[in-house]
Amino acid sequence: MSEVIRTTRTPPEPALPSFDVYEFDKDTAVTCMETSGVTSVWTADLSAGWNIGANPNGGYVLAVAGRAISAALPQHPDPLSVTAHYLRPAQPGPATITVDVARTGRKHSTASATFVQNGRERIRVLATYGDLSAQEGPTRIEAEAPQIPAMDACISRGSLSDDGSTIAGRVNAMLDPGLGWTRGTPGGTAALTGWISFKDERPADPLSLLFFADAFPPALFDWLPEKVWLPTIELTVHVRGKPAPGPLRGVTRTRFLMDGYLEEDGELWDSSNRMVAQSRQLGMVFRP
Amino acid sequence: MSEVIRTTRTPPEPALPSFDVYEFDKDTAVTCMETSGVTSVWTADLSAGWNIGANPNGGYVLAVAGRAISAALPQHPDPLSVTAHYLRPAQPGPATITVDVARTGRKHSTASATFVQNGRERIRVLATYGDLSAQEGPTRIEAEAPQIPAMDACISRGSLSDDGSTIAGRVNAMLDPGLGWTRGTPGGTAALTGWISFKDERPADPLSLLFFADAFPPALFDWLPEKVWLPTIELTVHVRGKPAPGPLRGVTRTRFLMDGYLEEDGELWDSSNRMVAQSRQLGMVFRP
Repeated sequence: MSEVIRTTRTPPEPALPSFDVYEFDKDTAVTCMETSGVTSVWTADLSAGWNIGANPNGGYVLAVAGRAISAALPQHPDPLSVTAHYLRPAQPGPATITVDVARTGRKHSTASATFVQNGRERIRVLATYGDLSAQEGPTRIEAEAPQIPAMDACISRGSLSDDGSTIAGRVNAMLDPGLGWTRGTPGGTAALTGWISFKDERPADPLSLLFFADAFPPALFDWLPEKVWLPTIELTVHVRGKPAPGPLRGVTRTRFLMDGYLEEDGELWDSSNRMVAQSRQLGMVFRP
Repeated sequence: MSEVIRTTRTPPEPALPSFDVYEFDKDTAVTCMETSGVTSVWTADLSAGWNIGANPNGGYVLAVAGRAISAALPQHPDPLSVTAHYLRPAQPGPATITVDVARTGRKHSTASATFVQNGRERIRVLATYGDLSAQEGPTRIEAEAPQIPAMDACISRGSLSDDGSTIAGRVNAMLDPGLGWTRGTPGGTAALTGWISFKDERPADPLSLLFFADAFPPALFDWLPEKVWLPTIELTVHVRGKPAPGPLRGVTRTRFLMDGYLEEDGELWDSSNRMVAQSRQLGMVFRP
C-alpha cells in the first residue's frame, strides 16, 4: 500500500492543460528505453494507489499500456478501440511495455503491446488509435443518457468495501442508491449507474476513459449475494469522443451469466450528455 | 470468383462429425509449417467463395486465423473471446498466420496472431481460448431470444445485392422482412434480425460463430439510405456456448453513429433458445 500524497496545484489552463500535476498522469507515466523499427520498449512504475484488494485495478494497468501505445503512435494520440487480455494480476512496481506497430495509416494506427512485470506477462493489448478531433461524418443516436440521482444523494463506492483497496483514494465512484446490493439486498437487474471522476479533479480525457471503463464495481453484485471474485478475462473499450469537463456518468449491465461466465457492457457519458466510451468485458465467477 | 461445387455427402455422425466434407472447413484449413517455442507459423489459402464485393468477408478471414490459433492451443480448442483489428482488405489466395502464445493456463490460453498476404499484414488478432464443455458455474439470463418470422417468409440477403459478392453461395442469410431497407424504405431502428446457416448444412460450431458474427449486412443500412462502405476497424466475438443443431438466429443493432463512426452489437442464438455468441464491432462510414 502506498500513501496518497496530495499536492497543491493550480487549475489547468483550458487550452493546454498541464496534466503532470495529477495523480493519474504521474502514475501512468512511461519512459521510452529503446526503439527499433516498429518496436519500442517503455518502462513504467505501477502505483499502489489504484488497488482493488492487493492488486492494481485492471483499467489502471490498461491505461498505463495505453499511454505507451499512444506515445509510440504520435500521429494518432487517441485510443479508439483497445482490447486487453488479462493473463495474471499485475503488481505495484516496475513494468516493461513493448509496443509493436502493425500499421500506421492516414486515419488510424494499430499496435499490440505486452505488459511484463518480473519476467511474467500480465496483460496483452491490441489497439487502434486515431485522432478524435478529426472524426467527421454522419451522426445519429438512438439512446438516452443514464438518469442518476444527484451526486450527494449517491453512495460512495469506497464506503462499501474494507478489503484493503486503495482506489477510493484516487477516484470518486458514487453509486445510484437505488441499487439493491448497496443496501445489502441484491436481486435486481444487474444494471449499475453512478458518477465517476478523479478525486484530484483531473479532467477526464480519452486515455482516462480506458481506466474509467473498468472502475465501477461489477454490476453482477446485484445477482450474486455472496462475495465472489470476478476476474476479467478480456476488456474492450471503444472511445467515441473527447469528454467535456465535469464528472462522467457510467452505466454497466450484465445480461448473460452462463455457466459462470459473464459479459459486462458499459457506457460512459459526459456532462454534455454525450456518450464518450463503450466497453464490454468477458469475466468469470471465481470461487477460490 | 470461384464456382460453388456441391458434393454429395452423408450426414455427419452426431458423436464425432467429420467436418472435412464441408466448404467452411475446406476453406479455413490451415497447415503448420514451423513451430519454435511459443511461436508457430501456419499457411492457409483463402477461397474466393466468401467474398463481399471483391474481398473475403472479414468474419471468414477471422475464422481462418481462429482455426490456426485453435490448432496452436490443443488443450483449449474453443474460442472464448477473439478480437481482430482489420488493417487492409484480405484477398483470395495464400496467407501466412503466425501465432504467438502469451499464456497457457489451466482453464484458458491466450495468443495473438498476425495474418499476412503478399508480405502485408491484413488482420491482427488477440484471443483467449478455453473449453466450452468444461465451463461450470451459476447461470442467470435477463434477455429473450429474437422473434423472427419463419425462414420461408424472410428475404434472402443474396437477393438484395448484385455487387459480385459470392458469399450467398456459401451462406443462407434470411432477413426479417419487416426491415425497412430490404424493401427500399430505410429509416427505422438500425436493428436487424435474421436466420443464418451454411448452405451445405454444415452444423454451426464454436469456430464458425466467429464467421457468423460478421455475416449479416450492416444494421446501419436502416439509417443510411445511400450505399456506403462500412469497413470494420475492430471486431470482438465472445463465444458463450456450443450451438445446438439447426439454423442460428441473429440480431444486430447500432445505437451510436457519431461523426461517421459506429458500433454494431450482435447476438447469435441457437435452436434451443440459447445465446451462443455476442459480438461488437467498431466501424466507420467510408465514402470513397
